[in-house]
Amino acid sequence: MKYTLGEDVLTNNNEAARFNRALFQKNKTLVINLMSSPGAGKTTLLEKTVMALAKEFRIGVIEGDLATEMDADRIRVAGAQAVQINTNGGCHLDARMITKVLPEFQLNDIDILFIENVGNLVCPSGYDLGQDHKVTVLSVPEGNDKIPKYPVMFRRTELVILNKIDLLPYLNFDVKQALEDLSGINPDSQMLQLSATSGEGLDLWFDWIMLCIKNA
Amino acid sequence: MKYTLGEDVLTNNNEAARFNRALFQKNKTLVINLMSSPGAGKTTLLEKTVMALAKEFRIGVIEGDLATEMDADRIRVAGAQAVQINTNGGCHLDARMITKVLPEFQLNDIDILFIENVGNLVCPSGYDLGQDHKVTVLSVPEGNDKIPKYPVMFRRTELVILNKIDLLPYLNFDVKQALEDLSGINPDSQMLQLSATSGEGLDLWFDWIMLCIKNA
Repeated sequence: MKYTLGEDVLTNNNEAARFNRALFQKNKTLVINLMSSPGAGKTTLLEKTVMALAKEFRIGVIEGDLATEMDADRIRVAGAQAVQINTNGGCHLDARMITKVLPEFQLNDIDILFIENVGNLVCPSGYDLGQDHKVTVLSVPEGNDKIPKYPVMFRRTELVILNKIDLLPYLNFDVKQALEDLSGINPDSQMLQLSATSGEGLDLWFDWIMLCIKNA
Repeated sequence: MKYTLGEDVLTNNNEAARFNRALFQKNKTLVINLMSSPGAGKTTLLEKTVMALAKEFRIGVIEGDLATEMDADRIRVAGAQAVQINTNGGCHLDARMITKVLPEFQLNDIDILFIENVGNLVCPSGYDLGQDHKVTVLSVPEGNDKIPKYPVMFRRTELVILNKIDLLPYLNFDVKQALEDLSGINPDSQMLQLSATSGEGLDLWFDWIMLCIKNA
């Protein structure tokens, strides 16, 4: 792939995203781009997902972080192939970073590829990575005002996972308000309530993934 | 102030930051730039700070959010003048946005101006706003791996507030590890442990502000 100098960054990104998407479709790999604030629980959710689904599906994970290989190491311990991208300070993954690491996977041997984006509730929403589905994790301790306050992210996502519901007894989080705000801002989206740590509600997430595979 | 077209964005930012800083110094206004992930508790901390210090000091607050006036409304209820900046999707405040709203304050009547940045643990760290002090809030539910994973933010801050310590009994947060990571990455910084919600440890934060005023 060749990019013309001076071309708009997002145009280049969209070209790379198209390239990735075509490759994923050719290899029948379902791709999920997981986004959230730092510490909302994306990696824990992926660890539990790998542990639950790795017998039935071949899973790969791309981890995006500013620095360290900590998250990729956690995923490997959970039992899946993981490739770490370090953005060296960059606030989001872009499609070209994904294109660059895809040769590290045997895509025709991967049923589901999860891309864990950089923890950031703003910038990642603007970059198509070539994924089939965009999923946003919102965690109970962040508070239920995050949907109106970060509308770009929640408008562009298909599924919101409300994580850390085991902490609801200790915090003032108005689930009803969050559901109303989400349906106001993005009527086509849905919200699943779960705790990746306690395991409560994880079945809803696994069912959602199964449905994506069935409909692919 | 006049900016030359095509000039580097950060150069313009630094010009505006110099302008702001000169204005703050002239008016003897102490300025604190507060940064964190979404939902780490910046606004709650500011509400409690306004309620505790508004009798002794004249406080102003600039609130930065992608959308809504929710945070400025909360600060007004707490008892301080607040001006809301909406970045309309932008991931950080820059110095020119601050310059633009400063005429809404009578700076010579403001002892302490807090700037609550957009909730984002990446982008705000790169923009000097003209503040005297940069403070980063890290909350217990985000996990103690955030310091190595977001090194740019923690390297550029002077004080880390570890917030929501009331949740320590319910979560796996290794305070000792976080302290070690911070001193490794930024030996000149310090960490205060508190809960803005329960009030525990807030005195440490108020003492820190008093020391800043004394040393200004």
